Amino acid sequence: MNRRRRVYEGKAKILYEGPEPGTLVQHFKDDATAFNKKKHAQIEGKGVLNNRISEHIFQHLNEIGVPTHFIRRLNMREQLIREVEIIPLEVVVRNVAAGSLSQRLGIDEGTQLPRSIIEFYYKNDELDDPMVAEEHITAFGWASPQEIDDIMSLALRVNDFLTGLFLGAGIRLVDFKIEFGRLYEGDMMRIVLADEISPDSCRLWDIQSGDKLDKDRFRRDMGGLVEAYQEVARRLGIMVGNEPNVPRGPVLVQ
Amino acid sequence: MNRRRRVYEGKAKILYEGPEPGTLVQHFKDDATAFNKKKHAQIEGKGVLNNRISEHIFQHLNEIGVPTHFIRRLNMREQLIREVEIIPLEVVVRNVAAGSLSQRLGIDEGTQLPRSIIEFYYKNDELDDPMVAEEHITAFGWASPQEIDDIMSLALRVNDFLTGLFLGAGIRLVDFKIEFGRLYEGDMMRIVLADEISPDSCRLWDIQSGDKLDKDRFRRDMGGLVEAYQEVARRLGIMVGNEPNVPRGPVLVQ
Ligand SMILES: Nc1ncnc2c1ncn2[C@@H]1O[C@H](COP(=O)(O)OP(=O)(O)OP(=O)(O)O)[C@@H](O)[C@H]1O
Ligand SMILES: Nc1ncnc2c1ncn2[C@@H]1O[C@H](COP(=O)(O)OP(=O)(O)OP(=O)(O)O)[C@@H](O)[C@H]1O
Ligand SMILES: [Mg+2]
Ligand SMILES: [Mg+2]
Repeated sequence: MNRRRRVYEGKAKILYEGPEPGTLVQHFKDDATAFNKKKHAQIEGKGVLNNRISEHIFQHLNEIGVPTHFIRRLNMREQLIREVEIIPLEVVVRNVAAGSLSQRLGIDEGTQLPRSIIEFYYKNDELDDPMVAEEHITAFGWASPQEIDDIMSLALRVNDFLTGLFLGAGIRLVDFKIEFGRLYEGDMMRIVLADEISPDSCRLWDIQSGDKLDKDRFRRDMGGLVEAYQEVARRLGIMVGNEPNVPRGPVLVQ
Repeated sequence: MNRRRRVYEGKAKILYEGPEPGTLVQHFKDDATAFNKKKHAQIEGKGVLNNRISEHIFQHLNEIGVPTHFIRRLNMREQLIREVEIIPLEVVVRNVAAGSLSQRLGIDEGTQLPRSIIEFYYKNDELDDPMVAEEHITAFGWASPQEIDDIMSLALRVNDFLTGLFLGAGIRLVDFKIEFGRLYEGDMMRIVLADEISPDSCRLWDIQSGDKLDKDRFRRDMGGLVEAYQEVARRLGIMVGNEPNVPRGPVLVQ
């Protein structure tokens, strides 16, 4: 396993060359970062949990016909994925006002939005991922109008599915960030969901208590991050606790 | 003239009740502000010049069939306009990278954009006019999808006209900000161009020298603002200099 080539090391994951051409191994690290790396920590067990939660979600999305890069999980921290050409956009879907939307538009956190809102951010750490509009995306050629349409339809399908999935687990899906890529198959190209979906990339609030079960616990120095992610996994029926090398702890929310 | 009701006093203009229902008098002040009022000054003669330049442009736009609020100029500082329901968006059209686009997306000032880009900002001084996307505009009901389409078509027509107008005067139209409103006529409603178009709301660069002939002279403490606006007026064939109460000064750019 040590001789495989590292293709990319990011803030939360490493990509290795996969066993076959066109595949990669996505490795989930324990690193947590926020505010564009201004804040950084190691949180033992986070990578294992995100790998399992993201697997669970991507598998189901594949099943309902939302195309994704996910092939299968390989081990506790790794999954086999299809290599795609990442579209340099962070696509944010919001159902409830929180975070930067609340700040920028002066809407109290927790306010239900009149309808789901899709936002695009240009993936560029040096520029702090600035928000962009379709106008910028098409003018600078980051994606075509047709690709934006595909991305928006897929994002709304993902939102529908995730809203239901988390609702069934007593969790309010406030917002989430996803990425898309171009998958080339022969002379065909299609847009597929890539990267991860985990409590690192979602805002998840317990419906009863309002407790945060996501990375805001880290951003806002609330502690209990792994316990919260573990609770999300448990509620989704992912039995991480029975496997080796997984941190145990009291469940955070009752 | 003193008994008329003041409907609104803004940073650069005052609106008075007009002589007939559905009309207003738009009065151009000499106040210059920037960075959401953090910077403020009186610049003698600016209001007179903006009134004349905006009159010139709106009159021509009316003539080519771009509907505007403009009826006629009343005096040195005032024009008669139709009252509209202002859509709370600042619509920015950009041809060349400058200002916030350069900063946010890391593109050098002066770089020709691959195509004209339309941006929307939510008109709200308390929030510092945050940039928004069509998603926010329709979700929060600031304008309908049909209205956004109308606004974008009109904005592109205005851009075509202004680009030509300024080119003929040896001036590069870098970008500009416009506002639109809903004009109700019986049970008809249509979107019309409102507010003003002047060197306060455009970036105008001399084609030969690159000299700035717009409000950036004030934002960036370059001085010579009135002289620059006067030069714009002169090149557009507006004979402000022959009228009373108008500041004179050397032309800035040769
Ligand atoms: N299927 C895929 N093919 C190629 N690249 C992918 C795929 N899925 C995700 N990626 C990319 O792999 C990287 C994952 O690493 P990580 O999320 O840690 O990066 P990051 O530090 O968040 O930086 P970035 O801002 O690029 O996401 C991301 O750049 C992501 O866009
Ligand atoms: N035809 C019109 N009918 C009604 N209001 C108008 C019309 N044209 C422009 N306005 C509004 O009149 C005001 C003009 O004043 P001014 O431009 O000084 O305001 P401001 O300080 O820039 O504040 P704002 O952020 O509202 O533009 C603006 O609020 C503008 O939206
Ligand atoms: Mg990432
Ligand atoms: Mg104004």
